[in-house]
Amino acid sequence: MIRVGIAGASGYTGIELIRLLASHPEVSISRLYSKSQVGISISQIYPHLKGIVDLTLDPLELSYLTDIDVLFLALPHGQAQHHYDLLKSIPAKIIDLSADFRLNNPVDYLTYYGEAHTRPELLGTIPLGLPELYSAQMKSADYVACPGCYATSVMLGVSPLSHAGLVHDTIIADSKSGVSGAGKSLKESSLYCEANESFSAYGTHSHRHLPEMEMVTEAKILFSPHLVPMSRGILSTLYIPLAKPLSEADITTIYSQFYATAPFVQVRPGLKMPSTKYAAGTNHCVISWKLCPDIQKVVVFSALDNLIKGASGQAIQCMNLMMDLPEIMGLPQIAPYL
Amino acid sequence: MIRVGIAGASGYTGIELIRLLASHPEVSISRLYSKSQVGISISQIYPHLKGIVDLTLDPLELSYLTDIDVLFLALPHGQAQHHYDLLKSIPAKIIDLSADFRLNNPVDYLTYYGEAHTRPELLGTIPLGLPELYSAQMKSADYVACPGCYATSVMLGVSPLSHAGLVHDTIIADSKSGVSGAGKSLKESSLYCEANESFSAYGTHSHRHLPEMEMVTEAKILFSPHLVPMSRGILSTLYIPLAKPLSEADITTIYSQFYATAPFVQVRPGLKMPSTKYAAGTNHCVISWKLCPDIQKVVVFSALDNLIKGASGQAIQCMNLMMDLPEIMGLPQIAPYL
Amino acid sequence: MIRVGIAGASGYTGIELIRLLASHPEVSISRLYSKSQVGISISQIYPHLKGIVDLTLDPLELSYLTDIDVLFLALPHGQAQHHYDLLKSIPAKIIDLSADFRLNNPVDYLTYYGEAHTRPELLGTIPLGLPELYSAQMKSADYVACPGCYATSVMLGVSPLSHAGLVHDTIIADSKSGVSGAGKSLKESSLYCEANESFSAYGTHSHRHLPEMEMVTEAKILFSPHLVPMSRGILSTLYIPLAKPLSEADITTIYSQFYATAPFVQVRPGLKMPSTKYAAGTNHCVISWKLCPDIQKVVVFSALDNLIKGASGQAIQCMNLMMDLPEIMGLPQIAPYL
Amino acid sequence: MIRVGIAGASGYTGIELIRLLASHPEVSISRLYSKSQVGISISQIYPHLKGIVDLTLDPLELSYLTDIDVLFLALPHGQAQHHYDLLKSIPAKIIDLSADFRLNNPVDYLTYYGEAHTRPELLGTIPLGLPELYSAQMKSADYVACPGCYATSVMLGVSPLSHAGLVHDTIIADSKSGVSGAGKSLKESSLYCEANESFSAYGTHSHRHLPEMEMVTEAKILFSPHLVPMSRGILSTLYIPLAKPLSEADITTIYSQFYATAPFVQVRPGLKMPSTKYAAGTNHCVISWKLCPDIQKVVVFSALDNLIKGASGQAIQCMNLMMDLPEIMGLPQIAPYL
Repeated sequence: MIRVGIAGASGYTGIELIRLLASHPEVSISRLYSKSQVGISISQIYPHLKGIVDLTLDPLELSYLTDIDVLFLALPHGQAQHHYDLLKSIPAKIIDLSADFRLNNPVDYLTYYGEAHTRPELLGTIPLGLPELYSAQMKSADYVACPGCYATSVMLGVSPLSHAGLVHDTIIADSKSGVSGAGKSLKESSLYCEANESFSAYGTHSHRHLPEMEMVTEAKILFSPHLVPMSRGILSTLYIPLAKPLSEADITTIYSQFYATAPFVQVRPGLKMPSTKYAAGTNHCVISWKLCPDIQKVVVFSALDNLIKGASGQAIQCMNLMMDLPEIMGLPQIAPYL
Repeated sequence: MIRVGIAGASGYTGIELIRLLASHPEVSISRLYSKSQVGISISQIYPHLKGIVDLTLDPLELSYLTDIDVLFLALPHGQAQHHYDLLKSIPAKIIDLSADFRLNNPVDYLTYYGEAHTRPELLGTIPLGLPELYSAQMKSADYVACPGCYATSVMLGVSPLSHAGLVHDTIIADSKSGVSGAGKSLKESSLYCEANESFSAYGTHSHRHLPEMEMVTEAKILFSPHLVPMSRGILSTLYIPLAKPLSEADITTIYSQFYATAPFVQVRPGLKMPSTKYAAGTNHCVISWKLCPDIQKVVVFSALDNLIKGASGQAIQCMNLMMDLPEIMGLPQIAPYL
Repeated sequence: MIRVGIAGASGYTGIELIRLLASHPEVSISRLYSKSQVGISISQIYPHLKGIVDLTLDPLELSYLTDIDVLFLALPHGQAQHHYDLLKSIPAKIIDLSADFRLNNPVDYLTYYGEAHTRPELLGTIPLGLPELYSAQMKSADYVACPGCYATSVMLGVSPLSHAGLVHDTIIADSKSGVSGAGKSLKESSLYCEANESFSAYGTHSHRHLPEMEMVTEAKILFSPHLVPMSRGILSTLYIPLAKPLSEADITTIYSQFYATAPFVQVRPGLKMPSTKYAAGTNHCVISWKLCPDIQKVVVFSALDNLIKGASGQAIQCMNLMMDLPEIMGLPQIAPYL
Repeated sequence: MIRVGIAGASGYTGIELIRLLASHPEVSISRLYSKSQVGISISQIYPHLKGIVDLTLDPLELSYLTDIDVLFLALPHGQAQHHYDLLKSIPAKIIDLSADFRLNNPVDYLTYYGEAHTRPELLGTIPLGLPELYSAQMKSADYVACPGCYATSVMLGVSPLSHAGLVHDTIIADSKSGVSGAGKSLKESSLYCEANESFSAYGTHSHRHLPEMEMVTEAKILFSPHLVPMSRGILSTLYIPLAKPLSEADITTIYSQFYATAPFVQVRPGLKMPSTKYAAGTNHCVISWKLCPDIQKVVVFSALDNLIKGASGQAIQCMNLMMDLPEIMGLPQIAPYL
């Protein structure tokens, strides 16, 4: 059994890692780490875990970094940089869900995160934890940086066309996310009565996930995120200007071939009503589209569960590859329909 | 007092007309019409109306078309055409919320509604019930055709720029609507468990509101509607390529001047988080934007309540103008915050 | 015009007072008070108020307690006691929405609020702001203490039977409230992802609204509140053991007579599906029931909007009575159906 | 591998059976049956099943009743009686989720279902599919009738006390269910805009699940169901008058011993906020309580997922026992927290 530790265990991605890893046939959860709730059992905070996962929360310090083969970091940005040397001093492989090592360019980090990166020399050396594009690097990696939830949906929706040189001009990525994307921190916009029965735009053309999208897709993107009154799910509506006319069959072929070996990308030509509900609860990214030949654009719909394929599930998918396990092991494949 | 009748009284726009008109200081509701529930009191169907509005539902026939000065048609498309001669035979002014007389072009009607218009000679002769653009025609009109809910949000968001010749190339209108936009008819996609906790796209580049948007804005539009798990509200995110560089101040001036005399359009430069909640429950359309000078686009956000400014409220606004009442009379101005 | 001030203006009951009072034909909002956001305009916090109510938030201090005829206190408990002498030093009538002066008995206050009342001598001297029972006292009062939201629903549902001596034994009050009952403070259980898609019980047999219910109804009550994933509305299901057999007609008579002059209580025998939606958005309390003669109980359903009849609307109803205005003035009467 | 068939596959319990059984390590789904959609692939109706379960829907006729070892009936009441002889003519074991064979007494069936039972001689001969009480009978059964969702929550919450003779007088069962309990049929009260932002009571003291509750618990019950605006989950608040004073420890002991060998009942003394979210997504029933010694009552909270422990999961639990598999095999154990 692979012994795993989870830092940031009490947040929403942490608790989702616990849920998924507790059912993984080759994993035992060995350690949970927290900053603010050290010494408390996770099942005191989350009573539904009682009798299932009852580990006590440890501080992220050397003396507690024992008995783990894989360490997941579900931390706010800044922490992984700060703890980097400590974390590398132990033999565990590290899967970092934070933003710290996603970008290649320290200038982008400064621009979008408002502070200088403290380990700029590492940027570009750590593989991005997006198995559909970078599984080769992942197999030998001992540190992987998973992309953001919005970013994953856009990267997977755009790359087959952009990497084939078929994108002409700026892509518009109009993304919609459930509220869990904001995490469990206490802020007014995350209150039930603020988010319920309302649909909002925020962070237009300035969101932190933009530079990683542009880096991976190699396309210019106008990214506009929105908040949906639901807990989980992202749908990105991607308006892609095509460099040349393509037929329905062309697009099907391009996406199907690009994802021929990707177990979690569902290419769905002709899907009638692209919905987050077809992806939520699974590690799938469901891709469909509407071709608009009169204006030489294709509207691509990319749907995923922001906590699974957009975070914890993708991190486990990375772990499976890094630990030479079947890529799909322990990851849910069928969405609960409702 | 103005005596009003409402055809299609038991649907969601019908019931919203009843709610708003029952509080209108110059109106008395005189007649309610229904096709399927003739002879039943409206308060049997909607028990919260008991003791407030207890009228019996009549058939839409000549002998019942008495005692009304204004008739609202909250009917499916096809009905207003069919009943046109009957309706014109009575002295009432008519405010038609259906799609029958919105378009100028019978070919568009055929293309988008799948059947030939039966009164094509009337198309183009009936003013569109969008007071912000056509109040002059409305004052002398005795028949007005109100635009669709999505269409209203796009028309109001785009027209100040497009009418000034400032739009270059296709606009992308990515709109999101609450479920009430689908009405009260029994269809699977309107079930609670289907719509809840899911966000979906549908009707991309083929929705029936598209031709009226393009007609009014005089712009080419790629329109992509989406379904939000909430009851009310539309937010349209409008990606507008600019014909020349504009500053923030330019855009503020353009919108403010365009809507200088429009009591229900709120031009809100710098609005931090454009949300349907700032419009829902009122007859307002709230317009804000994010300028993206690096790509010479502006992203305009247009928010309204699909049942009020998108339907019943706008129809009453039209009535106020047609009956020479203050434009804002009887229409809610402050949104319930939650 | 009556000049009103609102203390605690930026909370959910405060903002609802602003919304309702801004449409009240005999009121002008003169002053808004806040503790934490002094000097800021209310429309900076609530952008939808821009151009409608733009007052700056003042501190609740003597020098700002000018130009007001009525002062609403939408404050946490403890504040009204603390400020009592200050508030009584000005000529304004006071309508206190907090818990400070609801109870007659200082021991109950200590038991349920965990601290001694600082002005116990006043308890029992201030009328309870429940117009359906105490309108007589209200007309001459210059300070009124409004009951809690849950408490209002239970008091109105139980009193007609209990005051007639028809209740035998403990009543079970199983109440369900939307999330806005918890206010706008930042606590974990009020987060969207915590409350959404979950139904919870809390505070069983120990909630603070219990002693005021028992005081007013003169009945023994087992009170069990629950949290519903919706913003507004309370439904209390009241299991009332009857002291003697009663018929349907008896119960209709008892409730109808009890509320014969109450404009906001809707007595609805035979209501098929008692729902918060028939009350939400109005100042109504909708009362219906199911008689269970085999076990000599009646199950009474009492539905209201916790922010209106349960708080801000009821406070305005009190103001209308205290200021000799029509009881219903400025208060919404028809629920938006959806 | 056990080959299973599912009749009524396209409804909400059907689709949940498919989801759970597709992940069951000892099961292969062999046949799906439908009445209205014969000949269509299940993945045309539910696109998220494409590539995972693509079976075509067959009619429930003899020639299609092949290749199955276990047949699940997710049908409306009436169907299982009607098809009983047909179904017994094949070698498969049958797990009936409908109401047809739950009750022992044909008079109760007539009273609550409004029609005479067509196979009254069978009533009382078929074990009830509630493994926590009847696992012994189940092991040798070839036909099992699973109880209703509300009924399961009440039976599990009440039986430990009632079977010990500790209940005095009528129990009040105030239950709250998510909307999926109403199934996928097109009725107005199941529309999103009807159920959303509203909490309703219905069927008080007359719901069809009442006689099975009273039969199993051997207690007199006043049952009052309510509809919660969420998709899944039931919380039953059970007001139980005690025959003698009991301490907290007594109750803990009684429930813990009663469910000592029940893998899916979580007895949770001291659970702070009993919530459906601690059970939803799993096959658990979570039981907690608040003791009210002053009135010699205990308020028991019983939470489960109406589609899993209340329907499809419990049916699979029965299958596991009937087929001599581990009781928990293939059934989810950890709730997704949000």
